Amino acid sequence: MADISPFAPKRFPRLPKIAGLRLGGVACGIKANMRSDLMVCVLDPSARVAGMFTRSATAGPTVRWCRDAVRDGAVRAIVVNSGNANVFTGRAGARDVAATAVTAARALGCGPGEIMVSSTGVIGERLPISKLTAALPGLVAAAEAGAWQAAAEAIRTTDTFPKAAGARARIGGVAVNIAGIAKGSGMIAPDMATMLAYVFTDAKIPAPALRVLLAEACQASFNAITVDGDTSTSDTVLLVATGAGRGHRRITRAGDPALADFRAKLGAVMTDLAHQIVGDGEGLSKFITITVTGAASDRAAKAIALSVANSPLVKTAVAGEDANWGRIVMAVGKAGERVDPQRLAIKLGGVRITERGAARPSYREAPVARHMKGRRIRIDIGAGIKGARGRATVWTCDLTHGYISINADYRS
Amino acid sequence: MADISPFAPKRFPRLPKIAGLRLGGVACGIKANMRSDLMVCVLDPSARVAGMFTRSATAGPTVRWCRDAVRDGAVRAIVVNSGNANVFTGRAGARDVAATAVTAARALGCGPGEIMVSSTGVIGERLPISKLTAALPGLVAAAEAGAWQAAAEAIRTTDTFPKAAGARARIGGVAVNIAGIAKGSGMIAPDMATMLAYVFTDAKIPAPALRVLLAEACQASFNAITVDGDTSTSDTVLLVATGAGRGHRRITRAGDPALADFRAKLGAVMTDLAHQIVGDGEGLSKFITITVTGAASDRAAKAIALSVANSPLVKTAVAGEDANWGRIVMAVGKAGERVDPQRLAIKLGGVRITERGAARPSYREAPVARHMKGRRIRIDIGAGIKGARGRATVWTCDLTHGYISINADYRS
Repeated sequence: MADISPFAPKRFPRLPKIAGLRLGGVACGIKANMRSDLMVCVLDPSARVAGMFTRSATAGPTVRWCRDAVRDGAVRAIVVNSGNANVFTGRAGARDVAATAVTAARALGCGPGEIMVSSTGVIGERLPISKLTAALPGLVAAAEAGAWQAAAEAIRTTDTFPKAAGARARIGGVAVNIAGIAKGSGMIAPDMATMLAYVFTDAKIPAPALRVLLAEACQASFNAITVDGDTSTSDTVLLVATGAGRGHRRITRAGDPALADFRAKLGAVMTDLAHQIVGDGEGLSKFITITVTGAASDRAAKAIALSVANSPLVKTAVAGEDANWGRIVMAVGKAGERVDPQRLAIKLGGVRITERGAARPSYREAPVARHMKGRRIRIDIGAGIKGARGRATVWTCDLTHGYISINADYRS
Repeated sequence: MADISPFAPKRFPRLPKIAGLRLGGVACGIKANMRSDLMVCVLDPSARVAGMFTRSATAGPTVRWCRDAVRDGAVRAIVVNSGNANVFTGRAGARDVAATAVTAARALGCGPGEIMVSSTGVIGERLPISKLTAALPGLVAAAEAGAWQAAAEAIRTTDTFPKAAGARARIGGVAVNIAGIAKGSGMIAPDMATMLAYVFTDAKIPAPALRVLLAEACQASFNAITVDGDTSTSDTVLLVATGAGRGHRRITRAGDPALADFRAKLGAVMTDLAHQIVGDGEGLSKFITITVTGAASDRAAKAIALSVANSPLVKTAVAGEDANWGRIVMAVGKAGERVDPQRLAIKLGGVRITERGAARPSYREAPVARHMKGRRIRIDIGAGIKGARGRATVWTCDLTHGYISINADYRS
């Protein structure tokens, strides 16, 4: 087991209570050593759900199940196992997902289409489904309000700490709560990554509006992080509104101005969870924030930022605390987006390094070298396209011996 | 200094003689410790040249110079320094390229536009141009036929061995020679990589035909390798025909059937050089050949192969000798190309693992595990698109602690 990330929070955060939600986690025997590996979230019938999923062409049967099941917005439970991804397991894998949903549905007296299922872990091995279905009814019965930590623990794989975040928001003057958990540490890249995240609110928001709110918030959070550029077959983010909190004015669409604060707080919670995932990037020693401005469009800015974030040469330079800004120039150049090399402005730790297509004559490495020794590294890039205002921020981590150690013997 | 790659040839290869070409290498003081860092190839006035270059948006001034200089097909010398990439060095960097060309041109009594210039090494530092121009005239004068090894040594950076390959071909029954040298070890990815390659023939082929031959041969050689997915600002491949060999029938166009054998042998030499670059991939312990068939097109096949080749999780699994084929499924899925998961056929070391969207019931890991312990790893992927015949092969290496060590302290 790897050491706990230096970016792990000191303690599990206190989260606001979400009325209409009970949670639980248990060891059902998928993982060795009786580590917790089965999680359930049980929801009141008023709950509504929206989901975003991996774009992988080899997405697993849980993703195929959920894509279908979220469509009508109804949800009574979320069941997640860790230790086995149930991906590329053929028809048996699909049957195992159905069996999981049917088992939970029976325990709750609902239809299997109201059960969301996720799995994370090794790809290509059959799920020990009887262990899961044997433990599930008891877990559903024992689920309780506020058991966030038990739930967050049960969805971990190579994560070195459980991930959770919460906030309070106001909708038309009425306080509502938002809280969520996530897992993810490797195989993390935009358009979802081996990351699972489940975010809840006790506000009452219909599914179509939830979908818009979720898609928006993902753009600047889970779709703006990368650990290794690899994309999982299982990535899932669900946003659930239980509608069981204090009554607020009726919401019918995402564009309602009364959602302004909710939208901001939802973004903050999801960004917090996304940062925790990067901050638990396999083997990381540095947390890197990359901001690109002055690109031809926001999309171009994000492509440039991701090219830098995914460059092994940039990531190893950061690991080596090396102010090797030339590799940033290289990674900007290979992004396939327009930049003006003469006006390209690279900053490390806030120190402007380049101007007119070269290092500034006044550039001194000492302050930048000091910044590189810190834990949080800032890379700012002005793409220099005249009059253009495209901008994006992405977060990533460095590439260290720890990543190699974790991934060269993951299954052994 | 890293250990010599396990894939290094036992000795520097014997290369055929290229009439009309003299070569040399010397230490001019750019690198520390008097290591060789300046190379020249001097060509008879009959020589014709074609070039392919990096597509980086931050390409260096040598690339900009050569793009312009190759246009008329005339070439009298190639000058290459290692130890400093002369990239992102502003106007001074462009002046340094011109000064290099002018110095060589004076020594040869030709125009500076007939001099090709490349640089490789650290980005963003000013070239110590006076050391280079001081040493260059003597190097030009001392250049001699067959000094391949001195030339190949002088263009190395993190390469652990000098790279060269040669072949004989026939054009209309007349023997001609092909030989070349290359460098490259990290920052290697398609569309050129930090790789420089200079390939020569004593055949007489006009520049327009050379351009076609070079572009074709690059597709399946230098543009089909990747070490880390990073793309250099300096990549350059030049193909020079001296026209000083034995007289063969006149060639006016690349499509001439008399070039069939030449084309095949040129491809073989360039593929050999490309394999040597992958076989010297920074920190590698395994050489990986990835072939994709049954994709929607050759382009789609290459995209899938490169997605697998560049996946850190696949590369670390290979480093760990782990038959973790699920990561191949993941990397195929994230390529953004069409595959049929039900018909996706993954083989490791020739052993078919998947069928009908799962592991074969008869799959046993033992023979695959044995294959993974070898030095040369074969990954074959059938994309399963019905009736489609798109195919591609790419070569890469594993991702090891050695890569991290080399790149986390390259400048120190």
